[in-house]
Amino acid sequence: MKHKSFENMNCSIAQALEVVGERWALLIIKEALAGLKRFSEFQKKLGVAKNILSTRLNRLTEEGIMVKQIPDGAGQPEYLLTPKGMDLHTVLISLMHWGDKHKPHPEGLRMYYVDRKNGDPVQPMAMHSKDGRVLAPEDVQLVLGPGLS
Amino acid sequence: MKHKSFENMNCSIAQALEVVGERWALLIIKEALAGLKRFSEFQKKLGVAKNILSTRLNRLTEEGIMVKQIPDGAGQPEYLLTPKGMDLHTVLISLMHWGDKHKPHPEGLRMYYVDRKNGDPVQPMAMHSKDGRVLAPEDVQLVLGPGLS
Repeated sequence: MKHKSFENMNCSIAQALEVVGERWALLIIKEALAGLKRFSEFQKKLGVAKNILSTRLNRLTEEGIMVKQIPDGAGQPEYLLTPKGMDLHTVLISLMHWGDKHKPHPEGLRMYYVDRKNGDPVQPMAMHSKDGRVLAPEDVQLVLGPGLS
Repeated sequence: MKHKSFENMNCSIAQALEVVGERWALLIIKEALAGLKRFSEFQKKLGVAKNILSTRLNRLTEEGIMVKQIPDGAGQPEYLLTPKGMDLHTVLISLMHWGDKHKPHPEGLRMYYVDRKNGDPVQPMAMHSKDGRVLAPEDVQLVLGPGLS
């Protein structure tokens, strides 16, 4: 399906969605964050059709979110997140925390992140003020910047 | 297009994407967070086809992310975010900050959130430890919970 492109929308969210605003793309990035690297691993874990997986991995590579490399110059290629791709962890963990809260499993949390330093669960994703307070949507105001014509 | 459903995936991210994993859905929620309420306002701002907008608003309403109400019992209906919908602000602001960093406008930020209390820009979205430190992906570990069979 040909989507209407968001590329010409002067909006950081639309620009981000132009690249990762596709459900499989975000699930591929999620599995890459969890350590999967090979085409066959993504395919097996996600149960996604090979042609869709192939298209999505190519697009993520073209966009510099993943890099494709042959380990030790031989064998199956691996797909690794670049720093640009790793930066998407905030989007994925925000989705995870929202799903934990609003689409919970009856037995409890499916999985969660803990701080390696002390094993404490991380805080729910939230906006923070410069001095570290958690901010709710009503505590902030949207301001137009120079990039908005 | 009929998507493969993510409903049976026991994963909080897939569960969240089953509901909001569609580009227009996220842009509608973004505009609702910015204060838009009416069908015609969303349609004009997003330039989205009326049938797509109608389908997406109905789905968001069915899912309890928005409520449709007639103000003062008369006039055009309004679509408002519920608390469940407002909770998605962390996903949208994470996408915004990622777009600001990786798809920047040459003139600078398009828009940004400031703390109403003092006008300071909010911190970039990040994971935080229980005691308030910013955590990078390498600082955390994923742990399986009781909800994962």
